[in-house]
Amino acid sequence: MTDFTFNLKAQDNKARRGQINCKRGTIQTPAFMPVGTVGTVKALKTSDVEKSGAEIILGNVYHLMLRPSADLIEKMGGLHNFMGWNKPILTDSGGFQVMSLSKIRKISDEGAEFSSHIDGKKYFLTPEKSIEIQRKLDSDITMIFDECVAFPASYAQAKSAMERSINWAIRSKQAFEKRAGYGIFGIVQGSTFKDLRQISSQQLIKIGFDGYAIGGLAVGEGQKEMFEVLDYCPDLLPHDKPRYLMGVGKPSDIVGAVARGIDMFDCVIPTRSGRTGQAFVRDGAINIRNAKYQYDDKPLDEKCACYACKNHSRSYLNHLVKSNEILGSMLLSEHNIFYYQDLMREIRQAIEGGYFSEFHDKFFTKTTQFESA
Amino acid sequence: MTDFTFNLKAQDNKARRGQINCKRGTIQTPAFMPVGTVGTVKALKTSDVEKSGAEIILGNVYHLMLRPSADLIEKMGGLHNFMGWNKPILTDSGGFQVMSLSKIRKISDEGAEFSSHIDGKKYFLTPEKSIEIQRKLDSDITMIFDECVAFPASYAQAKSAMERSINWAIRSKQAFEKRAGYGIFGIVQGSTFKDLRQISSQQLIKIGFDGYAIGGLAVGEGQKEMFEVLDYCPDLLPHDKPRYLMGVGKPSDIVGAVARGIDMFDCVIPTRSGRTGQAFVRDGAINIRNAKYQYDDKPLDEKCACYACKNHSRSYLNHLVKSNEILGSMLLSEHNIFYYQDLMREIRQAIEGGYFSEFHDKFFTKTTQFESA
Repeated sequence: MTDFTFNLKAQDNKARRGQINCKRGTIQTPAFMPVGTVGTVKALKTSDVEKSGAEIILGNVYHLMLRPSADLIEKMGGLHNFMGWNKPILTDSGGFQVMSLSKIRKISDEGAEFSSHIDGKKYFLTPEKSIEIQRKLDSDITMIFDECVAFPASYAQAKSAMERSINWAIRSKQAFEKRAGYGIFGIVQGSTFKDLRQISSQQLIKIGFDGYAIGGLAVGEGQKEMFEVLDYCPDLLPHDKPRYLMGVGKPSDIVGAVARGIDMFDCVIPTRSGRTGQAFVRDGAINIRNAKYQYDDKPLDEKCACYACKNHSRSYLNHLVKSNEILGSMLLSEHNIFYYQDLMREIRQAIEGGYFSEFHDKFFTKTTQFESA
Repeated sequence: MTDFTFNLKAQDNKARRGQINCKRGTIQTPAFMPVGTVGTVKALKTSDVEKSGAEIILGNVYHLMLRPSADLIEKMGGLHNFMGWNKPILTDSGGFQVMSLSKIRKISDEGAEFSSHIDGKKYFLTPEKSIEIQRKLDSDITMIFDECVAFPASYAQAKSAMERSINWAIRSKQAFEKRAGYGIFGIVQGSTFKDLRQISSQQLIKIGFDGYAIGGLAVGEGQKEMFEVLDYCPDLLPHDKPRYLMGVGKPSDIVGAVARGIDMFDCVIPTRSGRTGQAFVRDGAINIRNAKYQYDDKPLDEKCACYACKNHSRSYLNHLVKSNEILGSMLLSEHNIFYYQDLMREIRQAIEGGYFSEFHDKFFTKTTQFESA
């Protein structure tokens, strides 16, 4: 059986080109993981997710434990079998959603009590339970259960949550059943406070993980503040392990984070934007509802190989979105997922080719003017 | 260039096995036309509609004239090019939607004035305008503009609408530009009154069309009453032209209508049901929301070749539909379109094989008990 490993293949300044090997396959990094929240990358067939070039997707403990439940998915042969996706899956531990989605919360050292956003039913999630759920889902990469703080957080709040998260990281690691080809990642917390990020990183490294995530960003602090944390935080982490920036982001966030040493990303932006008419194209983003696309017979993006770009015009997509047709959401979501995977391919090539700095600078020049969606 | 022709290849009692040849291809009959209301068979890519075996789809003058407009579609190269479907398209003339969907109506001998159900804007549709719109859409089969009456209609109402429809049929035929490989169909009206249906048929035959539709059914009269009309109405029509039963229907409606001499069908049921969780299977229909499918690891229908049946379990579909995921609508709609095309294939084989009566009787025995959706 394969071990869970990470190999660095090339580096261009801080930008890293690597490869994760795990039980269900290899993942070329920098990698973007489409988000399959409740067991579906929204509005895409898994076959189309695969066609985009995605080598790993993300699932959510929080959503799946509420519906259809971890026990059901386990009985159906695990999340891969349940949703028809045979490549690796990383599962988020639930910590972030408990903070951002659930209704009532009581957080103690033991764990987090919360009410489901679907039916108000009470749940209690602990590090041990989150790890158990992730084992039932059979996820290839398990995330530790952590306490996230909203932004902005006071120093005291951030410190307390970070310290609790370290305690939960220890318990998560203990609860994690080692199996060949499976990995568990720690999550660095500490909000925008450098000394807390330092302590968090040191403590997590002491516990020892197969990869390290940076959590608590992309929560409203803005790109500038996020990049300030990323200017030092990745350097606090082991060179020979993958680094994952959770919940990020816009294309420019990703390019900027890769430049600062990040290897993995996940975000709902490509699919969520797709459902509201926003499409990412080579020179930025467009809102396909805009009247100027009504008679535009060009594809969304001539360089894109997705189904919509090969078969349909902007005019048709404008019509579908204005008519609230499901096909509009389908085609734009799929296009955006293709765009993100193309972006990651270009990033990887740029690092391999040693021209990532130029790629980065050119990208920021041409995409700073995003149309509002 | 091809002429618009119809060849009968086999017959089994009244059931007919034929082939329509038109500009963009051949259509094996009995045929089911998926409905592409506003330029999309709802929740399906056109490539998947094609994979189902559909050889013709339906578009709607009423919907398309309101949004995005016939002029826009003409500028974009016609409806085929606009929506990415290269096989034949039949367009409904708008008569039925004026009756069923629009808000204010004033019908005179000249035409029908109505308000858009989208924004209340006023439109005036005449036979000439409907035919012009269908030419702009470049539809392969044009339908005459008719006046539909709701069910139940008094004899006087039905007679008046039928007589006006004959007048409009004459004007529609005159307005129709003859082009090789394109056809125009008349529509028999007369509600459930046999003598009106007889007069309507005779008058339409005198005008002369490439095919004949039976309109004004499937409007709430029920299967028994519909079959009573179909027991005589198809016999009033030319043997050597295709007969199209508009807006029908449930699988058993189709099997029963084929037995009475119908060649073509269209209906929103497969896609509309798909969006509400109903799936057609070999022995009837199931509502996938039902709790009994929660742990069911079988596909919807083991004999079906659609993507959902090849890749997903009833358990997964149950989860998607309960979670209101777009993928649920996508997979069930596509499955149902595949089911309908499979049904038509089985019907055609049964007629060719001379065992259609048995097929019919067996079908009615096994599918009379439909679960409520």
